[in-house]
Amino acid sequence: MKKNFTVHTTEDVPGLGMVGGFKVAGAACDIRNKNDLKRLDVALIVSETPATGAGVFTTNDVKAAPVLTDMAHLSRSEKIKAIVANSGNANACNGERGMADAMAMCKAVAELVGSKPEQVLVCSTGRIGEFLPMQKIEKGVKDAFEKLSDSEEQSRNAAAAILTSDTRPKTVLVKVEFAGKTITLAGMGKGAGMIEPNMATMLAFIACDASISQKLLKECLRFAANKTFNRITIDGDMSTNDTVLCLCNGSSGVDVDESDAAAIEAFKAGLLEVCRILARKMVSDGEKITKVIEVKVTGARDEEQAEKICRAIGNSLLVKSSWFGGDPNWGRLADAAGYARTGLDFSKFDLFYNDTAVLKGGEQVVENKDEWRRIVSNKTFTITINLNQGSAEEVILSTDLTDGYVNFNKGE
Amino acid sequence: MKKNFTVHTTEDVPGLGMVGGFKVAGAACDIRNKNDLKRLDVALIVSETPATGAGVFTTNDVKAAPVLTDMAHLSRSEKIKAIVANSGNANACNGERGMADAMAMCKAVAELVGSKPEQVLVCSTGRIGEFLPMQKIEKGVKDAFEKLSDSEEQSRNAAAAILTSDTRPKTVLVKVEFAGKTITLAGMGKGAGMIEPNMATMLAFIACDASISQKLLKECLRFAANKTFNRITIDGDMSTNDTVLCLCNGSSGVDVDESDAAAIEAFKAGLLEVCRILARKMVSDGEKITKVIEVKVTGARDEEQAEKICRAIGNSLLVKSSWFGGDPNWGRLADAAGYARTGLDFSKFDLFYNDTAVLKGGEQVVENKDEWRRIVSNKTFTITINLNQGSAEEVILSTDLTDGYVNFNKGE
Repeated sequence: MKKNFTVHTTEDVPGLGMVGGFKVAGAACDIRNKNDLKRLDVALIVSETPATGAGVFTTNDVKAAPVLTDMAHLSRSEKIKAIVANSGNANACNGERGMADAMAMCKAVAELVGSKPEQVLVCSTGRIGEFLPMQKIEKGVKDAFEKLSDSEEQSRNAAAAILTSDTRPKTVLVKVEFAGKTITLAGMGKGAGMIEPNMATMLAFIACDASISQKLLKECLRFAANKTFNRITIDGDMSTNDTVLCLCNGSSGVDVDESDAAAIEAFKAGLLEVCRILARKMVSDGEKITKVIEVKVTGARDEEQAEKICRAIGNSLLVKSSWFGGDPNWGRLADAAGYARTGLDFSKFDLFYNDTAVLKGGEQVVENKDEWRRIVSNKTFTITINLNQGSAEEVILSTDLTDGYVNFNKGE
Repeated sequence: MKKNFTVHTTEDVPGLGMVGGFKVAGAACDIRNKNDLKRLDVALIVSETPATGAGVFTTNDVKAAPVLTDMAHLSRSEKIKAIVANSGNANACNGERGMADAMAMCKAVAELVGSKPEQVLVCSTGRIGEFLPMQKIEKGVKDAFEKLSDSEEQSRNAAAAILTSDTRPKTVLVKVEFAGKTITLAGMGKGAGMIEPNMATMLAFIACDASISQKLLKECLRFAANKTFNRITIDGDMSTNDTVLCLCNGSSGVDVDESDAAAIEAFKAGLLEVCRILARKMVSDGEKITKVIEVKVTGARDEEQAEKICRAIGNSLLVKSSWFGGDPNWGRLADAAGYARTGLDFSKFDLFYNDTAVLKGGEQVVENKDEWRRIVSNKTFTITINLNQGSAEEVILSTDLTDGYVNFNKGE
């Protein structure tokens, strides 16, 4: 299929201020209560004209207050004026007071930007089960508002303010050209590793200058998140706060109309690219990991079979431990693929490290043994399984499991 | 309900030779190819009169050759004369030659004990993807046959011969008295941790002196295994070789007839007790673990909900890491319970360490904080969650996740 668009990706850019009509800032208000006003912990993203908003949220039964608040705000189908986020405290498992605090954050922003509180979205990440220090946060929000800018500095500050155990900020800029028009999208995110030492939260915020209906944006965002953020695994845990938000303010004048298939295709590709890069950055910065492994299952009866096997392998402690040791242990891979219980036929099972065959029809290709070892000693490699049972495929990104992860997360 | 039977349990007994009409032995034939004829690696269990046999097997799509062989043999509904088992090699993922080797082990035993090969069951545990050293094994089988005895020494040798990364043998003796009769059951098992360094296999063999139909034995064994071996988790991985076998030879003259509810109840209780003790011993000897934790969910809508939440908690890397550190991290427990996605209501969520309340209706009982810490620093404790949504409950046994586990399993 010929693509009628081109995607240009730039990594390691400042952040969301690079998209027309968006101003951002990061501020520090010592949410962690460490007398540290250098560590940024409040991020503010404001669209000059109210934007179409959509979100994808954790499916955990235990949803943090900001998640419930955003779901309610987006369900009103009003335009969104701003996103406010804090790190250091997840505002999760805090009952009614947690809900009131999340709403108070929205109100504080709404008063400053001149919108209804329901036109503000809120995210929190950090410790669970502790109330937000609201006085500090309100001060942080005011500081951030005063600093709002499209400068590189404030873009970087916003991207830094949402980090927890991440070792580096995660940003990306994508431009999609189609039919003589250009859509610009920028994203910032924080990673899916455990946090300080309580929660594993994944946050991603995306700003875009196209105009689009909320319904269509939601569909596209769900599609992109499912193919990217839902295809990464570090520890298999899913947090109470995981959130992906996208705002489209139309400042480019480019309209992604429901009747314009070419525009939709281009927009979707751009959104997918932003999510793909952020997801990869999250995995690569997973807690104390040393390797990033792509697990690909092809030749499956259907995508469900392929996905189940990808996840069984990507979440197996034995497999992940062997990656840490650089051990080309195909037995554990076959075992994990088998306990996904999808009805695989081992006599048709092909397995490759990168392009090097390990198993063909369930039998070892022993002459490649030295090459397996060489590949598995690398920092990144691909494991491909061909089930030879159909034509569906899936891929996920996973990491090794290290003694460092266990010690980092053992707490007190 | 009044029980019409009493169960007497003795742990740390020699093994299966203690049951009337069974002879056992352990032999060494250097399957690991380490010029070590001290390490026992072949176990033989023979019933003087052919016995009713039943098995419960791994549900992994990739089943090892001995598993497939035993399933075929048991499906013939013939009486079983013997079980032969080896450690050091799993005979898994070995294609047709693996199947032929498993059958050859049965034949070797059958010739010695005077039965059909189909009346012999076979188990293997150890390395995956390597062919069995059949000459050595045939020699080991002959040695074991010559040593067959009901002596303590050979009972202990048989229990030792199936071990891999286990640090100690696992045996139990159970006597059930009812209506003036006594049924004796003995069990031996090996643990569910990764093996040498390729597979996590759980094996359990049970000998009993009652007589019973194969259909009823199968039902009772399935029930008991499901409540015990299927309720333990160390790393969540399930092997290609997991097998539980039970032989009932009727030597006691006690008949567990399908029409005799009291006898069935007593037999079931005895079998459950054997499996329960073996399962607990397997968990307690899990690879490099330091703690055994009972996770109990009560007040569930149904058993499925309770079990899903038990498993999400018992398999969470973050939860297991926090246990290792002695950190009473209820946030991770609530998070894991939530991502089981069973529709739990966090505002009704009660959580206890032993009998000490941590959460009541989703809110912290902060005054107990010091006590939480004290309990979680113990080598064993119980976590109880009351969902307050119904009356169903489930329990599983889990362990902590240690840096030692990761380093032990990282391979090369």
